[in-house]
Amino acid sequence: MGLQTRITELLGIEHPIIQGGMMWVGRAELAAAVSNAGGLGIVTALTQPTPDDLRREIERCRTLTDKPFGVNLTILPSVSPPPYAEYRRAIIDSGVTIVETAGYKPQEHVDEFKAHGIKVLHKCTAVRHALSAERMGVDAISIDGFECAGHPGEDDIPGLVLIPAAADRVTIPMIASGGIADGRGLAAALALGADGVNMGTRFCATVEAPIHQSVKQFIVDNDERATNLIFRKFKNTGRVAKNSVSDKVLEISAQPDSQFEDIRPLVSGAKGRVALETGDIDAGLVWAGQCQGLIHDIPTCADLIARMMADAEAIITRRLAGMVSR
Amino acid sequence: MGLQTRITELLGIEHPIIQGGMMWVGRAELAAAVSNAGGLGIVTALTQPTPDDLRREIERCRTLTDKPFGVNLTILPSVSPPPYAEYRRAIIDSGVTIVETAGYKPQEHVDEFKAHGIKVLHKCTAVRHALSAERMGVDAISIDGFECAGHPGEDDIPGLVLIPAAADRVTIPMIASGGIADGRGLAAALALGADGVNMGTRFCATVEAPIHQSVKQFIVDNDERATNLIFRKFKNTGRVAKNSVSDKVLEISAQPDSQFEDIRPLVSGAKGRVALETGDIDAGLVWAGQCQGLIHDIPTCADLIARMMADAEAIITRRLAGMVSR
Repeated sequence: MGLQTRITELLGIEHPIIQGGMMWVGRAELAAAVSNAGGLGIVTALTQPTPDDLRREIERCRTLTDKPFGVNLTILPSVSPPPYAEYRRAIIDSGVTIVETAGYKPQEHVDEFKAHGIKVLHKCTAVRHALSAERMGVDAISIDGFECAGHPGEDDIPGLVLIPAAADRVTIPMIASGGIADGRGLAAALALGADGVNMGTRFCATVEAPIHQSVKQFIVDNDERATNLIFRKFKNTGRVAKNSVSDKVLEISAQPDSQFEDIRPLVSGAKGRVALETGDIDAGLVWAGQCQGLIHDIPTCADLIARMMADAEAIITRRLAGMVSR
Repeated sequence: MGLQTRITELLGIEHPIIQGGMMWVGRAELAAAVSNAGGLGIVTALTQPTPDDLRREIERCRTLTDKPFGVNLTILPSVSPPPYAEYRRAIIDSGVTIVETAGYKPQEHVDEFKAHGIKVLHKCTAVRHALSAERMGVDAISIDGFECAGHPGEDDIPGLVLIPAAADRVTIPMIASGGIADGRGLAAALALGADGVNMGTRFCATVEAPIHQSVKQFIVDNDERATNLIFRKFKNTGRVAKNSVSDKVLEISAQPDSQFEDIRPLVSGAKGRVALETGDIDAGLVWAGQCQGLIHDIPTCADLIARMMADAEAIITRRLAGMVSR
């Protein structure tokens, strides 16, 4: 059994399920576990402190799986940006065949990856950005709805509308991202016009995710309402789990004259990493999407993907087909 | 062909498509057209100035269709509320068999409708409210996501998460509302665990909707980004189409010391009615959901429902079934 789509064909994977790039979480253990389970695991480039560390992490992932996996490169505007060209070179030199890009002005990176025969999935949060990426020559769009963890953009369009709106205009294969955590979401995304799904929060609550057990349990315990949208005031909205840190960020941001400098100490990536690695939930920001309300356990990636596939197939061949009358 | 679900069985209708209650729009012409097309049309009680007018409107709907139709009764807190008990009496006396309730503390109304053998669909925007309505004894839940026109509540949970989260807990039949405008949304909602769909904005852009042609064209021309969330500051969030009035409401609301009194003149129902009836889009608030980005034409209700059913069935029996491999 299985589901064959334009995405499984494009990427040479068994199941149309992709583990999205995630800071501090997208390491070789998780990426390899997802790929071994028939999905596409993704190593997050900037989680590695240097391009040489990324080379070693890719090599390590290759020792853990002989299936395809990808690397995420997220390009964010910064006064002191990481050496993107050197990370890109590490990806290309390592023989990686699939890259997920995200963020601003990826053209230079897309060109360079494509010149080396690498398949590029570009993640974006709006139809106009998807069309722009399609024109840049990417191979597939990952369209990320308002429900997602991380940066949903400023338009606030959820997947139920965003996926079909994008499908009306985009011609290349499309991956639905945000709000998906089970076989129901997978079947729905395919019905809406996507060719596969991307999941982040759901993969955080798996045995293989390299984060503290308490964080996994925190996600399981949270319901769909337990997220906060931060940084809206600064036009860089991010969805994180509700905790004392994100509550404080909202409280400070609500003061009319507050500046980003006032919250900067709270929101450092280093503190978020401490939360993930020590399980001290209130040590920093913990990124999580609304689909945590659909997450009730901590399975292995293999069990999760097998269950999602069985559920999606049962929805298609039994639930939905059973409703159709002649 | 058709789709048989717990909702088509419960309501005795051919297709699992319901036209939700809408002020000024939910009149006999539209409700009858939807019911004649095999869906469930709904007359909006408070659009009628008096309970006696509602009796006449129900009678008029009955002359236009011999299929089941329902009546919406929305209960909102107000210093000078309409005579709810008298509207309720008009509904019961008129022999209506299906009622859609929405709003606050419906228990008294639910009890009275149920005592007269009327089937009650309760619309709500959160899982906890759905469970509360289920305990009150309603027959079905209409679960309304963040995408919707009107009042999505303050939780901001879209259908892709809200529908399965509710399906995990609610045992009675469930109707997905918000963000649905075509056969893709219908198939997705059924995959997520709903037994049917409710549409408002989509039915505004039909031949039979009793509103000005310019408003229908406005909805067609708008994309998914062209809505505004107003009244958030007053914990009574409403989603309306973006126009000069809703822009002005947001501008005033953004001033730290503004009060509801400052926007009250802009947001009157009477002015919204003028916009709908004269086609002067900037006369008042025009309520519309994000799914306007999926609306590209102004069909008859019969053509719309036939197309949605054909599309949903093709998605189930061809697109999705075609992906399943053995």
